[in-house]
Amino acid sequence: MFDKVLIANRGEIAVRIVHACRELGVEAIGVYSDADEDAKHVRAADEAYYVGGSQAKKSYLNREALLDVARSADVDAIHPGYGFLAESESFAVAVEDSAFEWIGPPSEVMADFGEKTKARSIMDRAGVPIVPGTTEPVTSASEVEAFGDRYGYPVAIKADGGGGGRGLKIVHEPSTIESKLQDAKREGEAYFDNPAVYLERFLENSRHVEVQVIGDRHGNVRHLGERDCTIQRRQQKLVEESPSPALDDETRIELCEAARRGVAEAGYRNAGTVEFLYEDGEYYFLEVNARIQVEHPVTEELTGIDLVKWQLRVAAGEELSFAQDEVDPRGTAIEFRINAEDPDNDFTPLPGTLSTFRPPTGIGVRVEDGVDQGDSIAPFYDSMFAKLIVTGEDRAEAIARGKRALEDFGIEGVPTTIPFHRELLEDRGFLENEHTTTYVERELLDE
Amino acid sequence: MFDKVLIANRGEIAVRIVHACRELGVEAIGVYSDADEDAKHVRAADEAYYVGGSQAKKSYLNREALLDVARSADVDAIHPGYGFLAESESFAVAVEDSAFEWIGPPSEVMADFGEKTKARSIMDRAGVPIVPGTTEPVTSASEVEAFGDRYGYPVAIKADGGGGGRGLKIVHEPSTIESKLQDAKREGEAYFDNPAVYLERFLENSRHVEVQVIGDRHGNVRHLGERDCTIQRRQQKLVEESPSPALDDETRIELCEAARRGVAEAGYRNAGTVEFLYEDGEYYFLEVNARIQVEHPVTEELTGIDLVKWQLRVAAGEELSFAQDEVDPRGTAIEFRINAEDPDNDFTPLPGTLSTFRPPTGIGVRVEDGVDQGDSIAPFYDSMFAKLIVTGEDRAEAIARGKRALEDFGIEGVPTTIPFHRELLEDRGFLENEHTTTYVERELLDE
Repeated sequence: MFDKVLIANRGEIAVRIVHACRELGVEAIGVYSDADEDAKHVRAADEAYYVGGSQAKKSYLNREALLDVARSADVDAIHPGYGFLAESESFAVAVEDSAFEWIGPPSEVMADFGEKTKARSIMDRAGVPIVPGTTEPVTSASEVEAFGDRYGYPVAIKADGGGGGRGLKIVHEPSTIESKLQDAKREGEAYFDNPAVYLERFLENSRHVEVQVIGDRHGNVRHLGERDCTIQRRQQKLVEESPSPALDDETRIELCEAARRGVAEAGYRNAGTVEFLYEDGEYYFLEVNARIQVEHPVTEELTGIDLVKWQLRVAAGEELSFAQDEVDPRGTAIEFRINAEDPDNDFTPLPGTLSTFRPPTGIGVRVEDGVDQGDSIAPFYDSMFAKLIVTGEDRAEAIARGKRALEDFGIEGVPTTIPFHRELLEDRGFLENEHTTTYVERELLDE
Repeated sequence: MFDKVLIANRGEIAVRIVHACRELGVEAIGVYSDADEDAKHVRAADEAYYVGGSQAKKSYLNREALLDVARSADVDAIHPGYGFLAESESFAVAVEDSAFEWIGPPSEVMADFGEKTKARSIMDRAGVPIVPGTTEPVTSASEVEAFGDRYGYPVAIKADGGGGGRGLKIVHEPSTIESKLQDAKREGEAYFDNPAVYLERFLENSRHVEVQVIGDRHGNVRHLGERDCTIQRRQQKLVEESPSPALDDETRIELCEAARRGVAEAGYRNAGTVEFLYEDGEYYFLEVNARIQVEHPVTEELTGIDLVKWQLRVAAGEELSFAQDEVDPRGTAIEFRINAEDPDNDFTPLPGTLSTFRPPTGIGVRVEDGVDQGDSIAPFYDSMFAKLIVTGEDRAEAIARGKRALEDFGIEGVPTTIPFHRELLEDRGFLENEHTTTYVERELLDE
């Protein structure tokens, strides 16, 4: 095992990685921006180094500063968390070239899955159904129009370097093709340094179902079951659960095995997620997130397997200790993202100081957080500052537990997503499992 | 299911029962003494009623006041928690006679197991090995001396109505028999209103291993695996874990099945625990705790079964939904009792105000508590105000997680058992599983 690991991230995922390091006896080295000088992830780390100004590009995206810290702290490996540089192939290359271990997939594999058209081709070749669309970038409005004529509207224009809903534009009618195409290219350029875009049918009535995978250096790739992330607002996940209440057992097994096979054939290592859309009994590959995900605790609760610790172990060369048939998910887990945002102002992030932060306790309740009472939520970063994960014997028990824990969650100082979650747990459509990825906008928000 | 349940208790177990009620959609009715007017269990309940002065005998042991509340709040059932009236057969009779459902075993079964000599006879008849000793009360010093001559010293003199270490006196040499016998009788009279005592060999190098059982009204009795509670201080449990690292699988199965069979033959219903001592490959029945126990969360973590909810369900007439072979404990869980006590003054309870109470969060961490930050710990009741339960894939992971969570547990205002637990998790004898019930006094305390 490593002696020292640099955590090139902040907030709840940085704290989560510190926990894994401490349980493995590994020194956790943190980094911080101006805004995060006294943040919880800094207090939790064994040591922490300043890497730049409050804006992410000056600090958590500051490759040189991060590599400088890695050298001066003399770490063995770098864990990128999620977001920031986690899916940057070029940063992974720089880390590997600097002789630090990258706690993630090999950079070549990241490259394969980072370009979404390439990822689609890989999965297509592996016999995994993909969302109908192009496996090459498109450049002109006429190509979009031809695609719309053939498959019907809406059409999704997606940034080739994108993911997580960024650089995604939905075209509902031919007249908006030109402007949406330019918007998508511009966002792709701005967020991912890549203006290429491709097309997919936009499946409006689908479920988002994804499969957790992990691979080691010894050729073993396992899946750890699926998660259902259908509850989204503007393509951003808000609630994730497992098992997916939309799948029957036969489909579940087939989907999980397809995901495993697809990434295994591409030489996948470390943790990753294979995302699918599921509609009318059919599943379609969407993209691979070649990193740990926000919602990984849902899988940890059901399997008893600590994914972040296994990320460190397989990066250090350990072999996965569990065979595929030893992965045995039990019960139902649901994660609720706790974001600081203003419900009266279009849910825009609203920073502030947590005058009260009192997480719920008791049976079946897990909280992951990047704050303590009295901390401030900075305006520079993602608005999610905590996650509540509840686990029960079945979906009904997990929902009952979620209601109880959300009611007990004491937060004052910033408005949060908790009222949304409490409303969701009373919503007939969600309870009866009728929701799709556009359900929240259609049924739950007054937009 | 019931509409309303009276929780005739306080502190963490009252809060735990409120959680179960809320998840079942049952109204939780609390009670409070003068000292507990603003306690967390009162805030957590749907309604709460005053039952008397701060001293337990004026409030939480005040049978008439509790039954008055049950009547005026119009509850369906009464949950006694643990301690106070939980093992009072006469209170259970009064509850049954008042047409409230008693959330515990039938009073006749409580009577059978309440007298320890009777319990020993029942288990003996069911073919369960008992700790060598008498199955009838003894009255004279000469009987004790004859027992010592036959089995050797030390001899345990135990109150027939006792349990949990109260009314227990250890005789190491014949000269102290007379005084210890009188002490045990006096404590039995004071605590349990029963001066009868009996004798057992005192097994100095044994492990304390106990089996969780639960039965319904339909004749089903299941065991839910065992817990190892060998880490004790003055016969009081401090740390409990499962599975017991002292047992091999064959013994574990045999022991659990013996416990299940023994209580099933006595017509057991609701939750209970069958306690054993284990020494040199042999196990010996000790006593039955005919109630929920402090350490029940250890079993809940491994099985995924909510014991307190099942207490309510079986009391309401529901049938247990799981067959014996569907009970499948997974991983290792360890519970640490967080008591307010003074390490510099012989660990006597030390009340005070919690200026900081910040439970740890993250993977594998569960906290049960009866307090929030700012609350006071009253001097009138048990000094335990919270419990930390950690769960991991195996004992090593649970221990690593325990170290991390104990370090993260922020408590200021009262001294606690946390430094003891942290020392224990570094102790070679505990880590290598060499400890017995007298280990803490011998090796870890400077007494």
